[in-house]
Amino acid sequence: MTEKPLTDRVVESFAGDDRLSEIMRGLVRHLHDFARDVRLSQAEWDAAITFLTRVGHFTDDRRQEFILLSDVLGLSMLTVGINAPADPDATESTVFGPFFVADSPEVPLGGDITGGAKGTPCWVSGTVRSTSGEPIEGARIDVWEADDDGLYDVQRSSGVAGRGWLRSGARGEYRFWSVRPSPYPIPIDGPVGDLLTAAGRGPMRPAHIHFKVEAPGHRTLITHVFAAGDPYLAEDAVFGVRDSLVAEFAEEEPGTAPDGRAGPWVSLEFDLVLQAE
Amino acid sequence: MTEKPLTDRVVESFAGDDRLSEIMRGLVRHLHDFARDVRLSQAEWDAAITFLTRVGHFTDDRRQEFILLSDVLGLSMLTVGINAPADPDATESTVFGPFFVADSPEVPLGGDITGGAKGTPCWVSGTVRSTSGEPIEGARIDVWEADDDGLYDVQRSSGVAGRGWLRSGARGEYRFWSVRPSPYPIPIDGPVGDLLTAAGRGPMRPAHIHFKVEAPGHRTLITHVFAAGDPYLAEDAVFGVRDSLVAEFAEEEPGTAPDGRAGPWVSLEFDLVLQAE
Repeated sequence: MTEKPLTDRVVESFAGDDRLSEIMRGLVRHLHDFARDVRLSQAEWDAAITFLTRVGHFTDDRRQEFILLSDVLGLSMLTVGINAPADPDATESTVFGPFFVADSPEVPLGGDITGGAKGTPCWVSGTVRSTSGEPIEGARIDVWEADDDGLYDVQRSSGVAGRGWLRSGARGEYRFWSVRPSPYPIPIDGPVGDLLTAAGRGPMRPAHIHFKVEAPGHRTLITHVFAAGDPYLAEDAVFGVRDSLVAEFAEEEPGTAPDGRAGPWVSLEFDLVLQAE
Repeated sequence: MTEKPLTDRVVESFAGDDRLSEIMRGLVRHLHDFARDVRLSQAEWDAAITFLTRVGHFTDDRRQEFILLSDVLGLSMLTVGINAPADPDATESTVFGPFFVADSPEVPLGGDITGGAKGTPCWVSGTVRSTSGEPIEGARIDVWEADDDGLYDVQRSSGVAGRGWLRSGARGEYRFWSVRPSPYPIPIDGPVGDLLTAAGRGPMRPAHIHFKVEAPGHRTLITHVFAAGDPYLAEDAVFGVRDSLVAEFAEEEPGTAPDGRAGPWVSLEFDLVLQAE
């Protein structure tokens, strides 16, 4: 009984026409190929069991260390890519991340989601349309972002900030006030952080605003808009950057804001293009 | 940015000459190949995260669900195979399993490890030698097994039973009393059990006695001896069976036991051959 027949026997144990069997056969083949390729030692297998146990014990209702692990291995972004809309005219997707909240507050068109988040005021605007060019009225646009300290509101205990949702107007237009996003580190106080440190990898994500856009008859878009010029664009810890999602957060003349406010402000214009279902 | 460059970028993030970097590069390549091959959906990725989280939360000081998962995926046995002695004359290895106890009681040569374990008395004997044919005196032989109910002593709370260690004699000989082992199911009350059930796989392991044999100047042998004729030999839930490890537990004439005991008994003869370090 050599190594190769073992793999065949395990694969055969997952015989069946259903999707679970198909996935498990693929998993076994690739998992075994991995162990053979690297000639996994018994001590390394032990270390892997210990590491996964730590990941499991670090995971609770507020912290998902397995998702973080999937993120830093590029598996989350790969899954996004596999399931992305095929239409090249649609806005590209990226990772969902762990900081979405389902019940954020609604703001009117042109409203303000800042809610006390620290940072330079940022006026975000654009159009929601379909790949055929038709504007989409009434699309639900959820937005969330980290503040100037690199923290999401759910990482503090001070209420909703830098988070909200609005609906696009009659010509697909959307616009709201928030703050300029900042780069931030993913949480590194757990086993995934230890892995990054041991591998000499950095924990930073480039500054971005999250968007989730839903409209009847269209595929839901989950994406970010990244800030052009961010020093971490080429080394996002979770590999979420796509060139088409990088846009200018333009410095504007103080006193020229659309609502007449004083002080410095920046603006971002970004169109959101949905593929039909 | 297509899918393929993503994998390259993740692999590059683990650049380095050390073993960790080498292993992580291999892991990323094979993990990504898996996801691409099966076209992993977002819902399936979600299910995988949920499953691994359950495995982590099921694991504690008395239960190692990640090892069980590795076992039923054949990864534990594959790792044994990768690290096995190269000498074809040495006794083959198999999985260590989760039921070894470091501090079991010593018995003399010809002693009894039964300790109240239920089952037909079984006289086990053989020789410990090196692949060159030299008998090995003073080898430490640890033995453990499940009883007639298919349970190890550590799965009960009634003390040591079916477990002990002895040293080989001057001509490498060893012999002890225990009980005939029984087939048993691996624990299926957790997520790994759910996986087996969903995949239509059985949980049974064929009857076996565990051996761990240590001798100076030799590689430690970790193996089982399986009972010939066991109905589960071809479908061991953890893929631990090797043809060379299957042996006859012979029915003996009542009243002919070496210690003169009455009643039915069986015998097993099995030589343990160690490779020089």
